[in-house]
Amino acid sequence: MTDQTVPLFDTLVIIGPGLIGSSILRRGVDDRRIARRLVACDISPEVRARVAELGIADVVEADPATAARDADCVIICVPVGAIAMVAAQVMPVMKKGAILSEVGSVKVTVMEAMQPLLTRYPDIAFVPAHPMAGTEFSGPDAGFATLFEDRWCLLTPPEHTPATAIARVTALWEMMGARVRSMTVDHHDRVCAIVSHLPHLLAFTICGTADDLADETRSEVLDFAASGFRDFTRIAASDPTMWRDIFLNNREALLDMLDRFIADAQAMGDAIRTGDTDVIVSRIQRGRAIRRSLIENRQA
Amino acid sequence: MTDQTVPLFDTLVIIGPGLIGSSILRRGVDDRRIARRLVACDISPEVRARVAELGIADVVEADPATAARDADCVIICVPVGAIAMVAAQVMPVMKKGAILSEVGSVKVTVMEAMQPLLTRYPDIAFVPAHPMAGTEFSGPDAGFATLFEDRWCLLTPPEHTPATAIARVTALWEMMGARVRSMTVDHHDRVCAIVSHLPHLLAFTICGTADDLADETRSEVLDFAASGFRDFTRIAASDPTMWRDIFLNNREALLDMLDRFIADAQAMGDAIRTGDTDVIVSRIQRGRAIRRSLIENRQA
Ligand SMILES: NC(=O)c1ccc[n+]([C@@H]2O[C@H](COP(=O)([O-])OP(=O)(O)OC[C@H]3O[C@@H](n4cnc5c(N)ncnc54)[C@H](OP(=O)(O)O)[C@@H]3O)[C@@H](O)[C@H]2O)c1
Ligand SMILES: NC(=O)c1ccc[n+]([C@@H]2O[C@H](COP(=O)([O-])OP(=O)(O)OC[C@H]3O[C@@H](n4cnc5c(N)ncnc54)[C@H](OP(=O)(O)O)[C@@H]3O)[C@@H](O)[C@H]2O)c1
Repeated sequence: MTDQTVPLFDTLVIIGPGLIGSSILRRGVDDRRIARRLVACDISPEVRARVAELGIADVVEADPATAARDADCVIICVPVGAIAMVAAQVMPVMKKGAILSEVGSVKVTVMEAMQPLLTRYPDIAFVPAHPMAGTEFSGPDAGFATLFEDRWCLLTPPEHTPATAIARVTALWEMMGARVRSMTVDHHDRVCAIVSHLPHLLAFTICGTADDLADETRSEVLDFAASGFRDFTRIAASDPTMWRDIFLNNREALLDMLDRFIADAQAMGDAIRTGDTDVIVSRIQRGRAIRRSLIENRQA
Repeated sequence: MTDQTVPLFDTLVIIGPGLIGSSILRRGVDDRRIARRLVACDISPEVRARVAELGIADVVEADPATAARDADCVIICVPVGAIAMVAAQVMPVMKKGAILSEVGSVKVTVMEAMQPLLTRYPDIAFVPAHPMAGTEFSGPDAGFATLFEDRWCLLTPPEHTPATAIARVTALWEMMGARVRSMTVDHHDRVCAIVSHLPHLLAFTICGTADDLADETRSEVLDFAASGFRDFTRIAASDPTMWRDIFLNNREALLDMLDRFIADAQAMGDAIRTGDTDVIVSRIQRGRAIRRSLIENRQA
């Protein structure tokens, strides 16, 4: 606790209290300097009942517009493909000067879809954020208050967003335990394509490749997965809707990274085919070097 | 402790006390039912000094032939490409009826290289083993006594190996805490190509792809690697010599799996390019289904 007596926000609204949304709420309940009043909003009665039961919000609402009316900050925590649609429901009723944020894993297409709304409601400050944290689980039970601890949160505010709004969203994520950095939407999507989206695509794919093998081999893949395959499939357990949206919305950067990767994998295959030891070893050594850098950056 | 009073082996010799070899030795020191006398053998004076210092062997030898003379069982724990060469040094001096084993990650080419020696020394029982356990670290300091606990150990004995020898090697690995299964060398190499070798190849490759990106993006890959990329690079930290040998020695099965994988990755890329939601979602769902099976098999 610092000597801060007035919370960062009076009313903070989370739309979509799933893994990410419910983690923000949990942190808010634990640290009352974040918001005086925490509102959760979900379309599904089961999710609303569960959120009430968990006691991670002061108010639980069904209707986004009702939830957002008194908000100082609304954070949309739904799949990427639904963000602009939810924004269209809340922006007309939001207070002048209030902050609208979202936590989608892709930014270019979300910004494109948001453009008409941003033009129409210039008094709402739009501060997109992407907390680089997650697990393979989803829903309100999956969240936890320390999910964002020591993780990065990337902000991609449009050019004309007031600096004070950016500062408040930065403060919010710092109170979540995260480190914050700002960048353009294009740069964000390229970085995430290689850091997260391509690895997930490869993970889903290798599971499919294994699943296509002759029955005998396939069953043993399951038995013997301990070494290597396991790490790949951990991330392959993630939610289909979320990943469909991410793949489709970050199409361009992702396909560019996939093309580069396939070319590199084919070059490695050629080196193995022709027995080109130098190429093989130098590629393995590059992998280790990158890994070493990661350890030095304390992300390992 | 059971009521077993005579150890499984009188003299057990480990050639190459690295990650795998030193883990076997440590377990042997902890559980004296495994062997009365544990001998470690390494070409490097530094490794021998370190093994003596660690106190994980009763005897430390420089020369494989000297080490193997009185052995009831010799386990060769060196990189795949050096196994047959070490076998050629020890087999001429080994006792009639003694067991020779090795722990290489690839079996077909090792068996091919061993064939002339097996014909020449028919009184040595050859029982290749592959403990499906490991970390990204190597050397005598990397090992630990519980490395093989609850892991699979695959045996690939040639047809004429005496059943008693297979039973003793099975008993050894069970005393290491592992579950044991036998299969042919061909089947072994295909299963390991998809379960372990292809994932490692992809991990090394994606690190290289990331390393080729424009400088600005590359530095951020390191910063933001937490989600997805990290799991891939964990296995990319493994030893270059070991993996060079594995890739070159399991060339055929590995290249077959790589071709299938690249075709599948390209199909996923096409589905993303054309916005074929059904294909994307069904592939993601297959990944999750495999993952779920893994969890049910308690390998997760
Ligand atoms: N998981 C991660 O690793 C991660 C990391 C960083 C950012 N993100 C981003 O965070 C956002 C949420 O992800 P999550 O992992 O928290 O997902 P989640 O646990 O599945 O939660 C998603 C929430 O959105 C709601 N929702 C789904 N479709 C909706 C729609 N069409 N309209 C309104 N609400 C809808 C869901 O409500 P119902 O349950 O009632 O359907 C649920 O409350 C996504 O944009 C994702 O890209 C995820
Ligand atoms: N690591 C894994 O995940 C894993 C899993 C299952 C099986 N395996 C297999 O286990 C074996 C050993 O791997 P490891 O991870 O234990 O490796 P490691 O820690 O690097 O140990 C290898 C040992 O082999 C010795 N060695 C290397 N080249 C040699 C040569 N040409 N002649 C004689 N000795 C040599 C090394 O001695 P110096 O240090 O003196 O050079 C060292 O003692 C490999 O065949 C590998 O495929 C590994």
